[in-house]
Amino acid sequence: MTTNGKKVAVVGATGLVGQEMLRVLAQRKFPVSELIPIASERSVGKKIPFNDRDWSVVAVSKDAFKDVDLALFSAGAATSKEWCPVAAEQGALVVDNSSAWRMDPEVPLCVPEVNLNTARKPPRGIIANPNCSTIQMVVALKPIHDAAKIRRIVVATYQAISGAGARAVEDFRKQNLGSHEARSGKNTSVLAGNLLMSWKVDAASGYQEEELKLVNETRKILGDATIAVSPTTVRVPVITAHSEAVTIECARPIDAKEARSLLERAPGVRVIDDFANGVYPTPLDAAGIDDVLVGRIRNDIGHPGGLQMWIVGDNLRKGAALNAVQIAEGLLLTS
Amino acid sequence: MTTNGKKVAVVGATGLVGQEMLRVLAQRKFPVSELIPIASERSVGKKIPFNDRDWSVVAVSKDAFKDVDLALFSAGAATSKEWCPVAAEQGALVVDNSSAWRMDPEVPLCVPEVNLNTARKPPRGIIANPNCSTIQMVVALKPIHDAAKIRRIVVATYQAISGAGARAVEDFRKQNLGSHEARSGKNTSVLAGNLLMSWKVDAASGYQEEELKLVNETRKILGDATIAVSPTTVRVPVITAHSEAVTIECARPIDAKEARSLLERAPGVRVIDDFANGVYPTPLDAAGIDDVLVGRIRNDIGHPGGLQMWIVGDNLRKGAALNAVQIAEGLLLTS
Repeated sequence: MTTNGKKVAVVGATGLVGQEMLRVLAQRKFPVSELIPIASERSVGKKIPFNDRDWSVVAVSKDAFKDVDLALFSAGAATSKEWCPVAAEQGALVVDNSSAWRMDPEVPLCVPEVNLNTARKPPRGIIANPNCSTIQMVVALKPIHDAAKIRRIVVATYQAISGAGARAVEDFRKQNLGSHEARSGKNTSVLAGNLLMSWKVDAASGYQEEELKLVNETRKILGDATIAVSPTTVRVPVITAHSEAVTIECARPIDAKEARSLLERAPGVRVIDDFANGVYPTPLDAAGIDDVLVGRIRNDIGHPGGLQMWIVGDNLRKGAALNAVQIAEGLLLTS
Repeated sequence: MTTNGKKVAVVGATGLVGQEMLRVLAQRKFPVSELIPIASERSVGKKIPFNDRDWSVVAVSKDAFKDVDLALFSAGAATSKEWCPVAAEQGALVVDNSSAWRMDPEVPLCVPEVNLNTARKPPRGIIANPNCSTIQMVVALKPIHDAAKIRRIVVATYQAISGAGARAVEDFRKQNLGSHEARSGKNTSVLAGNLLMSWKVDAASGYQEEELKLVNETRKILGDATIAVSPTTVRVPVITAHSEAVTIECARPIDAKEARSLLERAPGVRVIDDFANGVYPTPLDAAGIDDVLVGRIRNDIGHPGGLQMWIVGDNLRKGAALNAVQIAEGLLLTS
C-alpha cells in the first residue's frame, strides 16, 4: 500500500458509470496516488484525464492489478465474474458495480448508510454495489424499517435511460429529434415518447431481472428475508435519475408525520415535501446531486397505517458510482 | 327528434377531446343529421369539417341546445356545471366528460363495458364520463372483480401529456426541441426529460385530485364502496396513451392464468402478453386504437394470490371521446 494515497484501478473507465466514478473520486478528493484506468481492447492507450494528469488506459490483466489498493469494477457481469477474484487475490479491495456477485452469500451487498458494518471483513475481498433502483429505495426505507419493521413494499419505477449505458442515451437522443407519434415497426425499440420494459425476463415468474433485484437485493441489504416486494420496473424518456412510486406496510402503523421526521434525520436523504405548494422532487432536481430525494410522504388512503412516497435519485451517482466510492471511503479511509 | 339521425351538440368542439369526439362520431358512423359545434367566443364562426360539410361554431346558449338529441360536453367543469342542466332541460341526452357531475349521486358514472345499465334512466338527463385513468383501469379490472371480488388496488400511472390539453402538448413539443439536461429555474414546469405531478392537490390528504378520482370513481363504477385504492399519478413525456402499473388483491386468490383467460374474453380489452418473448403493450401501441391493452399479467411475487398487470389505453379515445360516444350509442341507438 502506498503511504500518501491509494493506487486505484477503475475497470470500465470509459463507460458512463466509470466516468462518473472518476468524477466522484475527484470531487470527493479521494486520495488517489496512481490511477489505473482499465477498459476494453479498443480503448487501450487512450488518455483519461484525472487530477490534472492524463492516465493511459490499459487492458485487464493480472498485472494491471499489481499493488492496487482499490479496484472499482463497472464493466459488466462477465468481466466482474472473471476478474474481481483476480484483483482481490492481488490484495485489492474490490467494489463491484455489476450483478455478478450481489447474491453470493460470501459477498456483502452494501449501501453505506444502511449496512456498512456487513462489509468490513469481506470473505472474498469483494463487496458488491447494489442495483441503482434498489440503492435509492433502501436509503429511504432504512429508517422506516428500523422504526416500524417494513412487511411489504409495492414499487413502480420510472427509470432513466442512462442506466442502460452511453449508447442507449445516444440512440434516444437521435430518436428524440424525430417524431413522437406512433410509427410502424416494433414500438418496443422506441423510447422517445414511449415507455419500455426491455430488461431480461425470468420466464418462470414473468418478472424482469431488474424487478427481481428489487426483491432480492432489498431483502439482503435490509437483512430481512421476510420483506415482501411487488415490483414493476419501467424505462421512461428521462436521461438521468430514477424515480419510484413506493407503497409500504409495516408491522406497526406509521404515519406520514413520523416518517417525515425519520427521513429528515436520515443520512443520504433530502426531504423535498411541501406538496400542497407544488414542492416535490423531479428527476431534473436529482440529476447530478448526491442525496436521495424523498417527497409526497403521505398516509396511504388505501391502507390505514401504511405509507406512500416518491423517491428520486441520480442512478449514475448514488445509484452506482457514488455508492461504490462511499463504500471504499468507509472501508479504506476510516479506522 | 329527427327521424333519420340525431342532432348532436359538441361543447368544446375545438379542443383535443372535442376534436377526437368528432373523429369518433364519424369513424363509427354515428347517425348525425345536424352538428352543433359549440366553443368559446373566440372560435365562434370558425368552420368545423364533419361528414363532408362545414359546420359553424356557435357560442354556448340555451338556444344552441334546441332540439338537440345528444350533447357531448368537454369544455371544463365550470362550463359543464352551468350548461349540462340547460341542455338536459331542453331534452338532450347529456354525456359530460368533465369532473363536474361524476360524484353526484343522481348522475350515473358510466363505462359501457362495465355498467351501462346504471345509465339507462339518468334522473337529471346527465351521464358522466369518468376520468381517463379510471376508465382504462376499470375496463380491465371489471371481469376480475366479477370473478374474485377485488379488495385492494395499488396503482401507479404514467400519464400522457395530451390529457392536459392542446396547449400542454405544444409547450412540450417546444421544450423537446431544447436540451434534456437539468436546467436552472423551476423543474416542476418542465416535462421534457422529466416527470411531473402537477394536478391540483387536496391539502388535507396530500393526494392529487387525479389520484382521488382513481379512488372514488373506481368505487362508483364498480358499485363497491369497500374497494381500497392506493394511487400515485405521474405525468410522463409521452404524447398519447396512459399506462398503469396495477397491483390487486381479491377476496379469493386468483392466478395469472385465470385472469388472462377472463381478460381475453372481456369486451374492450385486448391482451398483449407474451412477455418472455418481449411482447407487452406500450403507449405507442395504444395511441389511436379503441381497445384497452393489458399485458404483464403475473402472479404477484410479493403477495400470494394477488396479481400484477400493465394497462395501457388511449386517453383521448377510450379515456374520453370514445367512451362518451359509446355511452350515447348504448342509450340512443339500441332499443
